[in-house]
Amino acid sequence: MPTAYITAPTDAAPALARTLVEERLAACVNRVPCESTYRWEGEVVESEEVILLAKTTDGRFSELVERVEAEHPYETPCIERFDEEAVLPAFAEWIEESTR
Amino acid sequence: MPTAYITAPTDAAPALARTLVEERLAACVNRVPCESTYRWEGEVVESEEVILLAKTTDGRFSELVERVEAEHPYETPCIERFDEEAVLPAFAEWIEESTR
Amino acid sequence: MPTAYITAPTDAAPALARTLVEERLAACVNRVPCESTYRWEGEVVESEEVILLAKTTDGRFSELVERVEAEHPYETPCIERFDEEAVLPAFAEWIEESTR
Repeated sequence: MPTAYITAPTDAAPALARTLVEERLAACVNRVPCESTYRWEGEVVESEEVILLAKTTDGRFSELVERVEAEHPYETPCIERFDEEAVLPAFAEWIEESTR
Repeated sequence: MPTAYITAPTDAAPALARTLVEERLAACVNRVPCESTYRWEGEVVESEEVILLAKTTDGRFSELVERVEAEHPYETPCIERFDEEAVLPAFAEWIEESTR
Repeated sequence: MPTAYITAPTDAAPALARTLVEERLAACVNRVPCESTYRWEGEVVESEEVILLAKTTDGRFSELVERVEAEHPYETPCIERFDEEAVLPAFAEWIEESTR
């Protein structure tokens, strides 16, 4: 099963998480505040962001990506896929049910 | 080597982390506060939780899962396994020693 | 593409992240405050740390590890590699450009 790793501005993260769960593209989203360091227009800068860790299924993943791209304020958002080696069966079942 | 990704209520997380390390089921546990969005009894809700990232070995992983299931307040806890592609050898050795 | 998972003392994390981005060993670093539980000199202890999640390329990964080892205050730092299953193509391209 995949976890989508997305970063977003702090103010955009709660609505993005709610959209993914309401539209059954993710069963749940864990949102983690973070500080990001990166290069912007030649300068190394720091800004506050939120990491969204969205639990979903193989079948829903590409729809989730499309939805995030449509909703995200950045032109090139960080959207990555990490696959678990294993998931507690009962939790995996809950993810399946929540994204049907 | 595996990292166990577990979510738990804020007040249960410290004791759960301590149990895993005391019983040598994990070498260390990084606890990260988060906001979770999910569907509960038909409603999309948000609650504060903690992500526990427990560093352990292949050999100890299933015991760790059993222990978390036994201690966790949820009926269907999020317990997932992510495997690293590589770990600094000296740190991997420390994980092995700490879980013997 | 790899994400490096590194833990560091709270006060060392910002400079470490900046070094990796300035030297184009990582395109960006997400820093997440955490509480760590582990055994130290026979005692189970807790301390505040920061998780650094550094986005880089396959080609830059070993240089990144060497740099972190050189800069890190711990003798045996946690430096792990997680590989994404997939990355949004435009974001992957940005990572490549930022680490050339």
